[in-house]
Amino acid sequence: MRGFARYTKLEDALKLVLSRVKRLSSETVSFERALGHVLAEDVVSKTDVPPFDRSAVDGYAVRAADTFGATGTKPRRLRVIGSIPIGAPTRLRVRRGEAAKIMTGAPMPAGANAAVMVEHVSAKGKQLDVHVPLTPSKNVSARGEDVRAGEIVLKRGQLLRPQDIGMLASTGNLRVQVARRPRVAILATGSELRKPGARLGQAKIADTNSYSLAAAVARCGGIPRRLGIVPDKPKLLRRTLREAAKHDAVLVSAGSSVGERDFVPDVIQEMGELFLHGIAIRPGGPTAFGVVGGKPVFALAGFPVASLVAFDMLVRPALRAMQGLPADRGYPRVRARLARKISSTLGRADIVRVGLRSRRGGLIAEPIRVTGSGILSSMTRADGFVVVPEDLEGFGEGASVEVELY
Amino acid sequence: MRGFARYTKLEDALKLVLSRVKRLSSETVSFERALGHVLAEDVVSKTDVPPFDRSAVDGYAVRAADTFGATGTKPRRLRVIGSIPIGAPTRLRVRRGEAAKIMTGAPMPAGANAAVMVEHVSAKGKQLDVHVPLTPSKNVSARGEDVRAGEIVLKRGQLLRPQDIGMLASTGNLRVQVARRPRVAILATGSELRKPGARLGQAKIADTNSYSLAAAVARCGGIPRRLGIVPDKPKLLRRTLREAAKHDAVLVSAGSSVGERDFVPDVIQEMGELFLHGIAIRPGGPTAFGVVGGKPVFALAGFPVASLVAFDMLVRPALRAMQGLPADRGYPRVRARLARKISSTLGRADIVRVGLRSRRGGLIAEPIRVTGSGILSSMTRADGFVVVPEDLEGFGEGASVEVELY
Repeated sequence: MRGFARYTKLEDALKLVLSRVKRLSSETVSFERALGHVLAEDVVSKTDVPPFDRSAVDGYAVRAADTFGATGTKPRRLRVIGSIPIGAPTRLRVRRGEAAKIMTGAPMPAGANAAVMVEHVSAKGKQLDVHVPLTPSKNVSARGEDVRAGEIVLKRGQLLRPQDIGMLASTGNLRVQVARRPRVAILATGSELRKPGARLGQAKIADTNSYSLAAAVARCGGIPRRLGIVPDKPKLLRRTLREAAKHDAVLVSAGSSVGERDFVPDVIQEMGELFLHGIAIRPGGPTAFGVVGGKPVFALAGFPVASLVAFDMLVRPALRAMQGLPADRGYPRVRARLARKISSTLGRADIVRVGLRSRRGGLIAEPIRVTGSGILSSMTRADGFVVVPEDLEGFGEGASVEVELY
Repeated sequence: MRGFARYTKLEDALKLVLSRVKRLSSETVSFERALGHVLAEDVVSKTDVPPFDRSAVDGYAVRAADTFGATGTKPRRLRVIGSIPIGAPTRLRVRRGEAAKIMTGAPMPAGANAAVMVEHVSAKGKQLDVHVPLTPSKNVSARGEDVRAGEIVLKRGQLLRPQDIGMLASTGNLRVQVARRPRVAILATGSELRKPGARLGQAKIADTNSYSLAAAVARCGGIPRRLGIVPDKPKLLRRTLREAAKHDAVLVSAGSSVGERDFVPDVIQEMGELFLHGIAIRPGGPTAFGVVGGKPVFALAGFPVASLVAFDMLVRPALRAMQGLPADRGYPRVRARLARKISSTLGRADIVRVGLRSRRGGLIAEPIRVTGSGILSSMTRADGFVVVPEDLEGFGEGASVEVELY
């Protein structure tokens, strides 16, 4: 048994991890299924949007010059020559002194260059009095005013949101190249582990980490695959790790420290290369990272909080980078005032779970007191976390801190 | 043709909508599939977690009293009586002056009440020198220290996150009651609409709203079902609306204003009851809400931005409420300084799309200049939006505003 030779700083550990993960290849998906995927290409509009000049109001298509000088008391009188149907091309042509009835979304007839709202006219048979002057193109959605054919409408690396799906539809991009989702193998090691719900007796515990890690993988766009529980036997671990390395990344829960049972880092070294063992964070210090069969392998601590925190610090940025997203944790961040001081140790980043509540328009962050990294309820009660960087000894009560939201 | 009789204030409109939507029934899902669902029950632990006293370190299980007074120079000498296996109950009993080798996660043997880390002893055969004094329960994860059997571990209304999935696993809750996801029918009305990618010619446009709305529904936990494009014929709309009302909620895209084509509100009134027509927001003013066959029906404006904004303001809170989530928009919020002033009109809430960038540790919100609510690119370029409440005329340059993140 031995202690950690040294702890790598979080920033350096992350740099090293990111230097070993590659952006994945892309795949084609229908725009209807693209929500939440990351674009692997710039998307170019195939059409002008709108594709023709349309009226933006219900009213009358007119020649703007015919309305110059119109007022409520001195209206300009025009002659209505017809009505523009919706959804069909029109042959109507509006000449000087003429107007055509039009509805929102109908194509502007030839000759007309503005639309007057129905509220600003009085109509009687074919006789139309216009009460306001219009400038050319008033109330017209001009062809291409939203997007022009050939224009880049969405950029590579964009995470697709509902409005982006709409944009794909309106620009004729029915199939798009998106980043392939990383397939992530998850192994739980430990002879004391049983499937959740199994009888535990006096010495077994339920495997929880492989499920929470699978959920964490799914939540940042990955496709988790649980490979089950592996007892504490290097031979069995080697065999499962070989299978796991067929995926884009591998997570091993537990066996990442420096005790007798912690042979995962050695097995990684033996089957590939070990780059990191021990990160200067708490919880999550006993974390290792290496490559087996060209694939990144993360060995995470067995304590459930340590496991998820190390996931957030290293794995999540890596899985995001593999999809072409910014290589950060990507949680929304809010500022809050600390309800109590947080102490930390110089040279180590502390990840402190907090609950949030509102007070007088601001947010208060309440650090959740816990004694060990085995206390999962400290995370289920938390709304987010504060990272105390390694060069600080903590934050005082009332300090303004950045909270990353779970 | 007529104008809106009156515009209902956003707050009043939302209250009215929420008074007409019901929390949906619950359904049972496996904990493995529960990520992102909303709990419909308080979850109670079926076991103590951990289920037995475990060592939290690699080292030796001892009686704390045997170590009192130990120092590096004056260690306490104990006799090692054996080693505790992982994952199996032990019959070892530690008596006064004795110790048992133990690894992290192994059950504490009878008699022992503390564990000394391997770094704090020197061992030679069966002879163990302990260099530090231990208080009782030091380095022991006590049975139930995380969670006690019978304790409520997750509350009704909680949106399940990765750590919550872990908690379900560790507390033996393999099946949980979650809110049923609202099934939302989506109709696109408009004789000018074609499926995306179809030839458009001089008068047709692509249906984009039903796709972006479907994505918006999915993103707040609903199950969208697109019922296709309905031409501007009340009879066809009635028939489709009857089918749509078999779902938990209905969205109709377009026909929600007050022109000749805008017969959706009238059809809602005729088939059920219309509660709202015209909301004091921009974009999104021409929005109607009613009930058909007991189901909430939202008629949204045809302009793509107006449609999504009205969705965010009214539909999203409603769909969240139906799942037992807080009846708000639920977007993460950040504070930012405005790069330019925003003007608004008293009596109407303006929803202004903004881009965000970082400057000197703070965020700058850049309002996206747009002329009409047809400009979808104003939303695809936006990172979020600012709501200017109806009692303000806007915000000045440099003002601190709350940005809701898309």
